[in-house]
Amino acid sequence: MNASPDLRQQIEQTAVLRPNQGLRSSPIAAVILTGGDVDAIAGLLTLRERQAFTVLATSRVHRVLDDNPIFEVLDRSIVTRQMITLDAPCPVTLPDGRASGLTVTLFAVPGKVPLYLEQPGTIPALEESDQTVGAVVSDGQSTMYYVPSCAAMTSGLADRLRNAAAVFFDGTLWTDDEMIRAGIGPKTGQRMGHMSVSGSDGTLAAFTGLNVQRRILLHINNSNPILLDDSPERAEVAAAGWEVAYDGMELTL
Amino acid sequence: MNASPDLRQQIEQTAVLRPNQGLRSSPIAAVILTGGDVDAIAGLLTLRERQAFTVLATSRVHRVLDDNPIFEVLDRSIVTRQMITLDAPCPVTLPDGRASGLTVTLFAVPGKVPLYLEQPGTIPALEESDQTVGAVVSDGQSTMYYVPSCAAMTSGLADRLRNAAAVFFDGTLWTDDEMIRAGIGPKTGQRMGHMSVSGSDGTLAAFTGLNVQRRILLHINNSNPILLDDSPERAEVAAAGWEVAYDGMELTL
Repeated sequence: MNASPDLRQQIEQTAVLRPNQGLRSSPIAAVILTGGDVDAIAGLLTLRERQAFTVLATSRVHRVLDDNPIFEVLDRSIVTRQMITLDAPCPVTLPDGRASGLTVTLFAVPGKVPLYLEQPGTIPALEESDQTVGAVVSDGQSTMYYVPSCAAMTSGLADRLRNAAAVFFDGTLWTDDEMIRAGIGPKTGQRMGHMSVSGSDGTLAAFTGLNVQRRILLHINNSNPILLDDSPERAEVAAAGWEVAYDGMELTL
Repeated sequence: MNASPDLRQQIEQTAVLRPNQGLRSSPIAAVILTGGDVDAIAGLLTLRERQAFTVLATSRVHRVLDDNPIFEVLDRSIVTRQMITLDAPCPVTLPDGRASGLTVTLFAVPGKVPLYLEQPGTIPALEESDQTVGAVVSDGQSTMYYVPSCAAMTSGLADRLRNAAAVFFDGTLWTDDEMIRAGIGPKTGQRMGHMSVSGSDGTLAAFTGLNVQRRILLHINNSNPILLDDSPERAEVAAAGWEVAYDGMELTL
């Protein structure tokens, strides 16, 4: 969770809006949602009004959209809302009905309810369910994992990611209490549903031995020193073989 | 209405996010909403999470926010939602309780229901109510009108704007059918709740004789040729004494 919606996330999620046919086309054929929090779904509001694409998400996340009438701006006769069952590979179809050649599979990762659905005064439980998910996208040859929010590395998740060609992973905070220590917020990373990058139970440590070829941190809070090119923390992630995502990043597998 | 949310609108609405005290402050003390459509309210989602400010709007527009749980990301214990009655001057209070010295008054203008609340298959009626409003902001000496969406110039609105020091006004389309003619959409400006800039019943004509000192068009659709610095239409609005709003525009009265 960031103090303001992570616009980079939204832009990555929505790809580059550039007409490739006609006056107002865009190359976006599908949007995969990995949760119902603002940073995952608010970008949909920049894709209105009459662009055909498919929104792929779990039933839990679709319910979040259904419960917010503002998302009706995505005209249901133009924008298809497709439910995905966890762990079931789902072929991504183009708006004209042709196969895209891509398959997406969503899988549960430890996370919490979206911030705006938290009950005031209670600390939301971390759960592994269809409310916070990772996505694996494959063209049958190459495979990419996308896990922008994750509260803990489970043995199941480690097994899943082992030997992957590329993994984008939650890089929200460097240390769990950095926002508290900086005086910019009262919450730990765990409270927000994120594991930290550093530390013995952090992301760098958790990926050791998983043999993931490209490891890329994203969803990075503005308190995280890895955002600074010249910080010791950036040097540490680089030395551990990690990249830090940036605006306009493209990946070829 | 634009094909995608008018980001310039959102940015103007939310001013410049620049810390002026502490680590995460912003100079935004209040947000005035002039309607419930996406381009008017989606910017609120970039102002989360723990910034104190006041959202000023009519009860009708507040109901739109209430009906969308995603806006609960604006923590009600931090962000005050203040109801404004039409035509009643409302002092704008700073988050710390001090007076800002500014007063805002909202007034009804002809408009329609937000796009995402339209009933499928029906053409929404234009009405002059608390769903689409203009705002007048005053410091007791200078006064600025802000009318980003308006379907028609009524005699009441003309009387209100007469002799104003500055008016920002709906500049969505140049001609009512330009989107249809360009093949980029099936709707006229009137269908979308906007009067056009040109023509005998257009904005330029409607302001003739009103003696408004600074007249500034904003909320401009990307089909409107006044966006091009070198277009004949831009020359025409300039010759008529109008300015075209741009990113980062500042106004001193």
